[in-house]
Order: sequence, then structure tokens, then C-alpha cells
Amino acid sequence: MRTVQVELGERSYPIYIDSGLLGQAGTYLEQHGLTKKSPLLIVTDDHVAPHYLGKLEAQLQDHGYTTVSAIVKSGEASKSLSVFEDVMTVAIKGGLDRSSAVLALGGGVVGDLAGFVAASYMRGIKFVQIPTTILAHDSSVGGKVAINHPLAKNMIGAFHQPEFVLYDLETLQSLPPRDVSAGLSEMIKHGLIQDADFAKWCKEHAQQLLALDAETLGYGLERGCSIKAHVVSQDEREGGLRAILNLGHTIGHAIEAVAGYGEFLHGEAISVGMAGSALLAVKMGRDASVYEETMALLQAFHLPTTLPAYLNVDEIMAAMMHDKKFKEGFMVFIIPDAIGAVSIVSDIPEQDVRDVLEQLRDGGEAIV
Amino acid sequence: MRTVQVELGERSYPIYIDSGLLGQAGTYLEQHGLTKKSPLLIVTDDHVAPHYLGKLEAQLQDHGYTTVSAIVKSGEASKSLSVFEDVMTVAIKGGLDRSSAVLALGGGVVGDLAGFVAASYMRGIKFVQIPTTILAHDSSVGGKVAINHPLAKNMIGAFHQPEFVLYDLETLQSLPPRDVSAGLSEMIKHGLIQDADFAKWCKEHAQQLLALDAETLGYGLERGCSIKAHVVSQDEREGGLRAILNLGHTIGHAIEAVAGYGEFLHGEAISVGMAGSALLAVKMGRDASVYEETMALLQAFHLPTTLPAYLNVDEIMAAMMHDKKFKEGFMVFIIPDAIGAVSIVSDIPEQDVRDVLEQLRDGGEAIV
Repeated sequence: MRTVQVELGERSYPIYIDSGLLGQAGTYLEQHGLTKKSPLLIVTDDHVAPHYLGKLEAQLQDHGYTTVSAIVKSGEASKSLSVFEDVMTVAIKGGLDRSSAVLALGGGVVGDLAGFVAASYMRGIKFVQIPTTILAHDSSVGGKVAINHPLAKNMIGAFHQPEFVLYDLETLQSLPPRDVSAGLSEMIKHGLIQDADFAKWCKEHAQQLLALDAETLGYGLERGCSIKAHVVSQDEREGGLRAILNLGHTIGHAIEAVAGYGEFLHGEAISVGMAGSALLAVKMGRDASVYEETMALLQAFHLPTTLPAYLNVDEIMAAMMHDKKFKEGFMVFIIPDAIGAVSIVSDIPEQDVRDVLEQLRDGGEAIV
Repeated sequence: MRTVQVELGERSYPIYIDSGLLGQAGTYLEQHGLTKKSPLLIVTDDHVAPHYLGKLEAQLQDHGYTTVSAIVKSGEASKSLSVFEDVMTVAIKGGLDRSSAVLALGGGVVGDLAGFVAASYMRGIKFVQIPTTILAHDSSVGGKVAINHPLAKNMIGAFHQPEFVLYDLETLQSLPPRDVSAGLSEMIKHGLIQDADFAKWCKEHAQQLLALDAETLGYGLERGCSIKAHVVSQDEREGGLRAILNLGHTIGHAIEAVAGYGEFLHGEAISVGMAGSALLAVKMGRDASVYEETMALLQAFHLPTTLPAYLNVDEIMAAMMHDKKFKEGFMVFIIPDAIGAVSIVSDIPEQDVRDVLEQLRDGGEAIV
């Protein structure tokens, strides 16, 4: 068993990573002191529910817990205020009180939605994450939870740390290949921002990771979570350093918004964004090898690195203006200085960003 | 000028109480370090806006601030997810960023709604309260912000402390008499829970308070805020002591929910609830004088102390089951031990509560 401790003072929590943890969920809830007098709410989606919901419910009931479940549709569209209200209805009708907990069984969407329910139900109750995707290794560290506003992604949210995270590697075995690649995109990102050795390890182990080899994947998730936990523990509320985790996200979020949530998987969109950030880095004088190595790494995982023709550059620029990384009139980007090192640059000229988007459409060839 | 400091460590903030503060809002924002580079959002309602919005906007613009405003309908119905989304839309279109602040210009409804917008916009931005009702002296202390779910009041919320509170006594002069009485209900409550001398002072000054005498009202608000601030500073997240502030609220919230939000003013509903808590106290063996003095105090302010016949006791009981004060299978009530002293009692039998509701319908005569 691998354990990553996220250090956040009195809000610290562990991430347990191993095969078969779902079948021990009740024991972990007991160990973490969750009361059996108050019902639990399990939030999951219609892709995950058929595989794991019954197993989790039975496991918890065997331990004497009462549960109610909310099953939402799979996909980003479930991070809406309307679905949020539906989940709240299940919580209220299920009799959840202030000693209850919300369990997120699923990927990043379920984690974000369930987390915001936990953060705001009766002004905040306990939260447990049981991720079933690789991508969720990212969202399970740091307590950022949110739902979407029709005008912008993740606009309505909170910082709400879980009691613990239970990462059962067996639940990843049923992921479709496209979700595997997209999930590994955030893992790669953690190497790119802070750990050149890990980035190199990722590239060398691309085949095993894509094939979901448990030992390799366990190490990758542990390392990815650890890098993120280290950053978050230094900046819980995103005052400064934590922004480096947004490598690729300024362009990535805008692509998701313009393409329509769900057209691009999140990991795919930030892969294009990371390619864009590398292009921007070269434009600002960094060595061309930053771009070349970033591209080689993303391509080893079959991740997209170009903008499809149907996406309008003006719309992407407009969407970025609404993004949280746009602050006090300047465009803020995370720019790679080298593999494993990034800078937060807050005065990027709009025209340079526009040029990079055009080059991304042409495959980035123009600049290197 | 009177100032009450709410002591909450790094989240401490002052409440400024005086006549004419609205005309100095820009100066206060500057003193508290709010940036002029990011737009401010003013949230207010259609009753308050015609009187004070233009004045506030002009004052802030004179100081170099950019503002956008969201005007919601007056009344509890505006604490809905739908209105919340509309206000978020104004914030996004207005270009609010992480350095922006939300200003609540209005009563408790506007404060709760605007506060939850501030708590959740981009996972939390700054918040300033400019109360225009007496009732808001209560909600402006302690950072509890929330909106309603169709099934239960204040079910969706957060703890989000303001930067400061600006209490302009002049804005209270236009309040209708019914709102004045209802607002003073929470002030009386602060005397009842912790300060017998202040309860006595309230009764002796009922006429001046109802007539909105500025000096008397200033003192009453200062004292009410101070009592609440003292309780909240010992228990910010409502783990224990803070529950005493809920005197009258278990029954009061249920009345509001069953009558339909807006039929009873909040202060009126908790007045009936305080009468009910006093009846319950006598039922549990406290001296009958607790009930008699509570009734005399509430009646001095022309506040209701009985349940109207059109309210169904079963429905009120059911609504209480959904309330946050219902924990792990027991009914929790705040029970007066004497004027100025209360206990949190967590094992009240359901039948006793039902009996008290029936007696409240008959004016409480049956018990004393």
C-alpha cells in the first residue's frame, strides 16, 4: 500500500493507493471516525454506478452505515447548478445532517460536484473521495471543488479538503483508452512543472502506464499526488505558487468552453494547452528544446497537441478573458523554463497569445 | 461613531455604526485595502435600490472604483439558486476577478445571497456588508451566508467573514414599522440568551427603539452585535456554543418554511419560536416567570407570540426534521433557564414539542 500525506495543518489528510481498497471502504470510514448515526450520501455517475456502486453500498451497510445515493449522468454537463440542486434534494430527503459525509465515487466531475455539495450542504459537512479515474489523482489533492456557470467553467466553488482519499487501482482497469491517455496528461504535467526526473520516467514508462500496469501506475499516481501535495501544502488558497499547477489550463479551459464541455476531455484540452505554453515559452526566448521535449512527451501518450480547425481563435481569446487566470487586466500564463521548471508570467501580450493559438492550429511548425 | 470588533483571528473584522456612513463608503474601502483595479459587485434589492444604490455607486465611482450592480426582488424568494445564478452572471459579465469584492447593500436576504456569491465566486472573494435593516445587525456578525433549497431554508451556504460592516443608521429611517419590530426581535434575542441587563434595557427603551431614535438604536445595535460577536468568536464554525444563537429558530424556521417564505418576517417567526421555547422551558421545570417575562418583552415590541390557525402542526413538525438543529435522531432546542441564560438541550421528546405547538396555537394559556 502507498500513502501520500497531504500536509495542510489541521486539514491534513492521507491518500491511500492500492488494489482492492473499495472492498475495505467501511473500515477506512471507521478509522477516520465517521459516525454511523448519520446517513452517508454517495455521489456517482451512470458509467461508474453499474460497476462499483452496489459493491460500495453493500460494503458500507455491512459496517453498519446507512447510505443514500445520487447517480448523475457521466460528463462535464453534470457540473451544473441544476444537477447540484438535484443532488442536494437527495441529501435533504435522505436526512443528511451536520455529522454526515458525502462520498464521491467517480472521476473529476463527480469529485468536483460532490465536493461542492459537501462544502455547502448546511454550510459544510465531511467529504471522502473514492476516485475511479487516473485524472482524479489531480483533483483529489488540494480541495478545489466547483461547478460550472453557463458562461465559465469552475466559476462557482470552494476550497474543501476531504477526510481521506481511497484510490483503488482495480477501478481503473475498466477505463477506455482515451480516458487513460487524458488522465495521464495531468500526471505528465506534474513532472513538467516540478520534477524533470519524473517527466523522464513517465516518457520511459508510457507503454506500461497506458497498459494500466498496476505497479507502474501505483508509482505514477503516488509521485503525481506527492508533487501536487507539496505545492498545495505551501499555498492552500491559491495565493501564489499554486498557480503553477495551471500549466496548460488557461488555453485548456478556454478550449473546453468553446468546444462545448465534453467535446474535449479535460486532459486532452490541457495537453493542447501545454503545447501552447511551450510555444509561448520559445516565443519569449526559452530554448527550443523545451517545446520539442514537451511535444515528444505528450505524443508518447497519444495526446492531442494541435487546435482543430472548427475552433475559432477569437472565441478562445474571449473565453480566456473570463478565466480565473486573467487578473487585473493582464494575461497570466505558466511558462516552462525547462522540463521540470516553470515561471508564472503575468504580463503576456494578448497578440503573442493569439499568434500561438494560430500556430497551434497549424501544428506549431511555424515557430521552431 | 461606535465600532464593534468581531474577533476571529486572521478573519477578524470591524462593524462601524453611525449616521451618514454610506456617504463615506469609498474611504472605508480604501482604508481596508480594496483594489481599484478590479470591479466591485453591489448586490441590492428593488426596495433598497431606489433609496441608496445611486448614492453608493456615485460615492464609489468618485473614489475611482468601477462597479456593477445586481438588483434582486425584495424578499426571501430571492435566496433561490435561480437568483444566485443570475447574480453570478452579473459578476462574470462585469469582469469580477479574484481581487474583486461583493458589497451587500440591504437586509438579511441580500446579505445572505451576496455573501454566498462572495463565498463561492471563483472559490471565494472579498465581501463587505452595508446593512439597511435592523435585522441585519444579526446576520452581519459571524459570517453565516446561505441560500434556500425548495425543501429547507439556508440549506446551501458557507462561513464567509466580511472585510468590514458599514452600518449607516440613516438608512434605517425608511423602514416600515413591521420591519422595525421584526428586526428588533433578534436584538431582544441577544438579551435573552446572554444578558439580562440588556433584555431589561430593551424593554425599558421599547418606545424609543420602535421610534428609531438614533442614539438609542445605535446603542442597541452595538450591544446586540457585541453579544453575538462574543459568542461567535468562541465558536466560529458552530461546533457548540454558537448554537445558543438559535433560540427560537428551530420552531421559527419551520414556521417560515410551512407558511411559505415571506409570509412571516424572519423576526416574527423567531418571536413565535422564542415564545415556544419559553413554553418548553416551563414544561421542563423552569420557573413560569421565564415564560411570562419573555412574553412581556416580545409584546412590548408588538411581536407575534402565537401560531395562526392556518398552519398545520404536522407540517411544522416535519419541517423541523429537515432543520439543521435536528442531529443524529434527537430534537435539539435552546431552552431559556432564566432571562439572560439558556441551555442547549439535545434530547427533547417529540411529543413535548408537538404539545407546545398546539399550545402556541391557543396562545400558550394552557401551560402557565
